Amino acid sequence: MAKQEIGVVGLAVMGKNLALNIESRGFSISVYNRSREKTDQFLEEAKDKQVVGTYSIEEFVESLEKPRKILLMVKAGTPTDATIQSLLPHLEKGDILIDGGNTYYKDTQRRNKELAESGIHFIGTGVSGGEEGALKGPSIMPGGQKEAHELVKPILEAISAKVDGEPCTTYIGPDGAGHYVKMVHNGIEYGDMQLISESYFILKHLVGLSSDELHEVFSEWNKGELDSYLIEITADIFTKKDDETGKPLVDVILDKAGQKGTGKWTSQSALDLGVPLPIITESVFARFISSMKEERVKASKLLKGPEATTVAENKEELIEAVRKALFMSKICSYAQGFAQMRAASEEYGWDLKYGDIAMIFRGGCIIRAAFLQKIKDAYDRNPALDNLLLDPYFKEIVEGYQGALRKTIALAVEQGIPVPCFSSALAYFDSYRTATLPANLIQAQRDYFGAHTYERTDKEGIFHTEWMK
Amino acid sequence: MAKQEIGVVGLAVMGKNLALNIESRGFSISVYNRSREKTDQFLEEAKDKQVVGTYSIEEFVESLEKPRKILLMVKAGTPTDATIQSLLPHLEKGDILIDGGNTYYKDTQRRNKELAESGIHFIGTGVSGGEEGALKGPSIMPGGQKEAHELVKPILEAISAKVDGEPCTTYIGPDGAGHYVKMVHNGIEYGDMQLISESYFILKHLVGLSSDELHEVFSEWNKGELDSYLIEITADIFTKKDDETGKPLVDVILDKAGQKGTGKWTSQSALDLGVPLPIITESVFARFISSMKEERVKASKLLKGPEATTVAENKEELIEAVRKALFMSKICSYAQGFAQMRAASEEYGWDLKYGDIAMIFRGGCIIRAAFLQKIKDAYDRNPALDNLLLDPYFKEIVEGYQGALRKTIALAVEQGIPVPCFSSALAYFDSYRTATLPANLIQAQRDYFGAHTYERTDKEGIFHTEWMK
Repeated sequence: MAKQEIGVVGLAVMGKNLALNIESRGFSISVYNRSREKTDQFLEEAKDKQVVGTYSIEEFVESLEKPRKILLMVKAGTPTDATIQSLLPHLEKGDILIDGGNTYYKDTQRRNKELAESGIHFIGTGVSGGEEGALKGPSIMPGGQKEAHELVKPILEAISAKVDGEPCTTYIGPDGAGHYVKMVHNGIEYGDMQLISESYFILKHLVGLSSDELHEVFSEWNKGELDSYLIEITADIFTKKDDETGKPLVDVILDKAGQKGTGKWTSQSALDLGVPLPIITESVFARFISSMKEERVKASKLLKGPEATTVAENKEELIEAVRKALFMSKICSYAQGFAQMRAASEEYGWDLKYGDIAMIFRGGCIIRAAFLQKIKDAYDRNPALDNLLLDPYFKEIVEGYQGALRKTIALAVEQGIPVPCFSSALAYFDSYRTATLPANLIQAQRDYFGAHTYERTDKEGIFHTEWMK
Repeated sequence: MAKQEIGVVGLAVMGKNLALNIESRGFSISVYNRSREKTDQFLEEAKDKQVVGTYSIEEFVESLEKPRKILLMVKAGTPTDATIQSLLPHLEKGDILIDGGNTYYKDTQRRNKELAESGIHFIGTGVSGGEEGALKGPSIMPGGQKEAHELVKPILEAISAKVDGEPCTTYIGPDGAGHYVKMVHNGIEYGDMQLISESYFILKHLVGLSSDELHEVFSEWNKGELDSYLIEITADIFTKKDDETGKPLVDVILDKAGQKGTGKWTSQSALDLGVPLPIITESVFARFISSMKEERVKASKLLKGPEATTVAENKEELIEAVRKALFMSKICSYAQGFAQMRAASEEYGWDLKYGDIAMIFRGGCIIRAAFLQKIKDAYDRNPALDNLLLDPYFKEIVEGYQGALRKTIALAVEQGIPVPCFSSALAYFDSYRTATLPANLIQAQRDYFGAHTYERTDKEGIFHTEWMK
């Protein structure tokens, strides 16, 4: 029997859909799942497809051409380690394991290192785009040995999303680089979603828009600078009616946001790297607060604040201010996320290509957006760019839009509408563009109570003062 | 030779000062340091004191009465583990090791567990108050076996700070509880310092106060609700002149804030626990941004924003608004920190006593403040209080002061003064007091692109919608 070009382990929805995607591009493929039933079920579903089912690890590994290419689509964490351990005795030097799960990048770094000792290549790959993306073309972010990536590249390119004919996948960097970039992608997604939610709340409560009007506004926004998947689906969401009540469905959905931990990881990594990531972090905290629903309901009866009232005049002007506020905040959020990737690249020696990363985010994934091309352009102009805000394109926008962001925040603050991410975006912009911050006072305090020393503005050196004398 | 009541390992400044403090309270003490010179040097410095110097681990352990009480004042991390390993062969069941270093609470949990297997008690103790506090009386937060704490309690109480005759130390809880509470203390300290810095910057740039005037304002504030060590030293700092230039010293200090990681740990733990901690986290990020001095100087030449101008009228009114903004933000920050301790207490089974913790913060430590008594009162009224903001005393203040905070933020936002922590405090207040947040839209988006499901406002259950149909 002819050997297959690639194998997939794990036939939950993401594994199944990636397997079907691979098969549809003309690659020969075998599959394996720990429980026989899932394999049978999948083969039944895919009965008119060229898929080879296997029922033991031995049979699975045996079915693959060498060097073997095995895509692991199992649950992140312990199950991934267990699967690797069960495969390992049957593998040979040069074989390639590809982890397509939502894995913590430090686990990928560890596995890459451990497996390298047995001569097994390990590629940790971010896969973004959900179930539909997996089937039709996701954004794929592979990290690991470059020479191993060369061997799987044709498959990854074939199955990935395409934008302007370009595949939304590229080699990201060594060991955990792929999963790291996917993690930051998810953090950026958290930030985008919270920023859209803040915009929605202002439009709803201060402009007084109905769901139909919100649909109109977001549809309109999607035709301009904000053109993106998340704005598009937001516009869509406002058209959906609840079958039971006839109300807009969004209005009967409970305001408790769930999360799966990747936003949190992004913030924790930023804290470790010493990189400011306030917008994404505020968006993670906003989800936490939203999930305290019962406590908030109780607090709402006790703590009084302003009752938000709809503005009477210049509604169009306010809508446009919110649009600008959203776009400027989004730019600040991406500036932070890309600065974090740069810090991680330096820390781990990954040599990340920021423009290429922006390009592969353009299709397949949740944060796909027209403006990612502008990020690519910025890094083309200057690959060593310190911060996206310093690129001429982004500089012009944020300078021009800051007035709208200031106005929107001032209004929300006055009216009691919480805008943690808008506020955080502006505070970041105002801090970043300020040559002299009040941290001199913090250094004075630290030296006063803890003799932590300080530097001076007028000469080099480390100084300490006996403050109490 | 008579045995000593307690031993101290590690004679860097904190260890030396704690040893002198212990000796001054009439306890017999031996000391040991890995390098002989430090021991000799300390014995020379303390030659008129009753201190027994030892020059080997054996001699040191032998010099102590049983069960032995050994205070470790060595560098946190690997050096602490190495010291424990070197002591271990000489210890007996029932001996008590006390780690007074700035240790990560998870290390304390691990060590407590490992040592318990050999019957050795391990107490991880937060010690706050810097060098001076160590010598004269710090705030002490011990965690570990309660029965072991009983044996060292008389010493800890004797050496701690006293407020109204009460020692600033109490048993915090099992294993890592003491170091955890110390960590949150430090996080709160970061928040306090950033909030003071934001106040300072507004007073300086928008009210136009000189250093002498700033001294007056902070001195005045220190007589009221804000009465605290940090406000007191801030007032002090503004009086200090630079010997060389004659300028206020604070004006020649470089605005790059340092940090030692405990603020970061606090934020990372909040992220793990799912507790919103935006103010402290923004203060950590603000230090990061401050440390990017060279990049900010560059950015300041490229990115244009409003030039802050001094307000012409009602200066007194604005100063009072800033005072209220500061106090309200501080209350929100403590509400977050105490909510985090509650979540940690539940997660780790520590049964923390929040009122007692507030009480021991009142003396010795950096965040000592009159208003901690109000926190104690709040938990006396209701030990199961969900959030400090719901206590009648704090509720009345935040409801009354929110207008000042809104006004201060609106002004700063308009004028381009970064106020990340003021903004974050208000966003927290406005989110927490809001029964319905826009997270329904986030849940709709998540269900749209990832089939993550949602709950409904009108009935129980988990729901999913095929949004694209």
